Amino acid sequence: MLDENIKNQLLTIINPERYLDQPEALACYAYDAFVEESLPDAVIFPKTTNEVSGILKIASQFKVPVTARGAGTSVCGAPIPVKHGIIVCFSKMDTILDVNTRDRYIIVQPGVVNADIQKALAPFGFFYPPDPGSMNTATIGGNIAQNAGGPRCLKYGVTVDYVLGLEVVLASGKIIRFGSKNVKDVTGYKLTSLFCGSEGTLGIVTEAILKVRPLPETTKTLMVMFDDLDNTARAVTDIIGSGILPAAMELMDQMTLTAIEDAANLGLDKTAQGSLLIELDGVEEACEKEMKQIIEKVKENGATHIQEANSESQRQNIWTARRAAYGIFAKLAPDIMSEDVTVPVSKVPAMIRKIVAIAHKYRLKVGVLAHAGDGNMHPMIPTNKADRDEWHRVKKAFDEIFEAAAQLDGTLSGEHGIGLAKSKYLPLVMNQDTIDFMKIIKKAVDPDNILNPGKFA
Amino acid sequence: MLDENIKNQLLTIINPERYLDQPEALACYAYDAFVEESLPDAVIFPKTTNEVSGILKIASQFKVPVTARGAGTSVCGAPIPVKHGIIVCFSKMDTILDVNTRDRYIIVQPGVVNADIQKALAPFGFFYPPDPGSMNTATIGGNIAQNAGGPRCLKYGVTVDYVLGLEVVLASGKIIRFGSKNVKDVTGYKLTSLFCGSEGTLGIVTEAILKVRPLPETTKTLMVMFDDLDNTARAVTDIIGSGILPAAMELMDQMTLTAIEDAANLGLDKTAQGSLLIELDGVEEACEKEMKQIIEKVKENGATHIQEANSESQRQNIWTARRAAYGIFAKLAPDIMSEDVTVPVSKVPAMIRKIVAIAHKYRLKVGVLAHAGDGNMHPMIPTNKADRDEWHRVKKAFDEIFEAAAQLDGTLSGEHGIGLAKSKYLPLVMNQDTIDFMKIIKKAVDPDNILNPGKFA
Repeated sequence: MLDENIKNQLLTIINPERYLDQPEALACYAYDAFVEESLPDAVIFPKTTNEVSGILKIASQFKVPVTARGAGTSVCGAPIPVKHGIIVCFSKMDTILDVNTRDRYIIVQPGVVNADIQKALAPFGFFYPPDPGSMNTATIGGNIAQNAGGPRCLKYGVTVDYVLGLEVVLASGKIIRFGSKNVKDVTGYKLTSLFCGSEGTLGIVTEAILKVRPLPETTKTLMVMFDDLDNTARAVTDIIGSGILPAAMELMDQMTLTAIEDAANLGLDKTAQGSLLIELDGVEEACEKEMKQIIEKVKENGATHIQEANSESQRQNIWTARRAAYGIFAKLAPDIMSEDVTVPVSKVPAMIRKIVAIAHKYRLKVGVLAHAGDGNMHPMIPTNKADRDEWHRVKKAFDEIFEAAAQLDGTLSGEHGIGLAKSKYLPLVMNQDTIDFMKIIKKAVDPDNILNPGKFA
Repeated sequence: MLDENIKNQLLTIINPERYLDQPEALACYAYDAFVEESLPDAVIFPKTTNEVSGILKIASQFKVPVTARGAGTSVCGAPIPVKHGIIVCFSKMDTILDVNTRDRYIIVQPGVVNADIQKALAPFGFFYPPDPGSMNTATIGGNIAQNAGGPRCLKYGVTVDYVLGLEVVLASGKIIRFGSKNVKDVTGYKLTSLFCGSEGTLGIVTEAILKVRPLPETTKTLMVMFDDLDNTARAVTDIIGSGILPAAMELMDQMTLTAIEDAANLGLDKTAQGSLLIELDGVEEACEKEMKQIIEKVKENGATHIQEANSESQRQNIWTARRAAYGIFAKLAPDIMSEDVTVPVSKVPAMIRKIVAIAHKYRLKVGVLAHAGDGNMHPMIPTNKADRDEWHRVKKAFDEIFEAAAQLDGTLSGEHGIGLAKSKYLPLVMNQDTIDFMKIIKKAVDPDNILNPGKFA
């Protein structure tokens, strides 16, 4: 509970029904899709930028932590209020303010769900490329805070590549706006990119101008099975190395395929050791030509079964398998650790071997799911945090997985972010002066450390 | 001249032949391609990151300004040492350290010339997309400092979209490294983007990991003439609005065409009021299909002459005209002001009308050259700075051009940067709190303001 005086001041700018502090209500905002929890003291639902500014002015005055929250789908604990304080929840700032496909942008409030952006653009023949697995519920504010990715980011790039302009409320309550509606803009520091991926530690985004793209003329989707995981991974590096850039290239290993088939009965071959879902998009003739080249490459690498989607419903069927993976894994055990290491694509085979060996060493099950074309891997370990011994082994396994990624010139996160989960691993990929440099920026921008404190910066 | 003590300390880490302070030598480092000049006190040519670190430690101790310099091709005065001090010139740190097309990156020192990167990649069938007009001499360090663009950035994005990782020496002399060899990397703040476009005000880049791409299978190039400039501009918005994304779409007006033809005798039609150079690249069949659609669109907009390049030499001929423009303009008068406003593409016709009207009002000649597909316009005014009256009118004209761009939701720079030229216009596109925010970052990172002082931050 916040001090009565602070609460009263907040209630001068926020209607009481948009202020929660009953314990049973607070409990709903204590967690995300990561494995930690921490209760906030209050949850506030602003409707305007000025209200957000007002909240931050008060928070700043009393040095109360403030953590922004979208749909809470983060898998790294980014919106968990570890230092308690106020959760600013953006579910009531969910308006699409402008759709301009002629100039290729859309303007949205942070609470707009990613999938609703797609729906707003589709009638104009446009789309917004970043497509995190959680896109049906995740909000764009969270996508920006975490610099979210997704399967088709292989071809199209991640969130930061689509943020043209932002309105941000600083810890002081000051409102700044930067970037513009222009795809080319080098006016001052590139602040859009500084805030994108900053996990709410530098300011709170209250409006975003996003770049959008015309929908491709056609999409071709392929599901390929292999009887060897190494061959599967090698097919990926061969295809990417040849110069083709598919829209998506998703790898799943046998454990993942089996878990999906057991749960969803999609007709997947449970004996396959690895699979690739490959999607091409663009001009019809180009896709056809490149699809032929891809089929040759997967055959060279020993593909045992190749299924091309001949209709949109077949395509959706293939994607359902891939999209279901996380949800199905989450039900295999009380807890799930879904990680997000990335390595240069030529090192995907080596990294997969490492992950499998490490899991084996610690007697853990691991499913490997990867946006393989850009080397972004999601090893998923179903576990039970209450089983102290197993939980200890899970943590040891991830320690070694991150070390292995770093040794292979990889990095700690391709799209999930650092959050609570990975601060301690930062020294694996950057020196202390670099970590200190991030802290210098954080300290300058948020001197009282009220913005999402306890996270990486 | 630097104080003898400072000079002696610098000479303990830099060989004397890599330290210049004779007046006639300093004069060569007082200017770039902008219209101002200011002498440094010394010019140093480091060979290693540690030498750069040593220079900055000394500069920091004695609070001596330090300005990094590549080839000096900036057109906004970014490397002009307005507060004097030390120029750190990167011509001796010009090594390509690694070419890895399998993982799609190249590692370079800052003094490597953009064109040499292309030459190193070509044998592997790869290229580095950003292609500023100065690419045959401009260095990658300068490209990164200014977040350089170029014609094909329409399709491929600008420098910031290709910087995967950097090594940077801070004002303190500390060396930080961030980003990685991974195309997807959300480990901490996106510092690559903060430094890219920061014009040497936050740190000095000493090594860069750049993303590269496979060369397209084919390229198709078209030169189209119009008897009306409005029609020319409308053809641009029609093509972009239809969803096609050419690799480049360059607009030139009659004055530009005439100047080029008079100087270079390329057979250009001097009566044409506007021209478009349109280039498509990608898979052969896709380019053919889209080229047909483009030809239809330009015909609908009243194209009077359409010339398709049927060979690489014809293509080079068309590009020679476009690439020669700046150099030819620079010879029309003692000085040239080449500007860089950008507007959303649907506003290109309106912005061109504004530019022409403003030049007319102030009795100035103006050539309009534009990367029109992304709304990035380069109005070029040949002038004589010594003619006080004319120079005054030039400045008034640019004041109004920037105001017009801001009113059309445009911005001050698409690819040249702010430098000396445009600090004073920042309030046209951002509020004071946003400008102050940039200063907060600058102050935190470079508390003594020794890094390229006197510029925008």
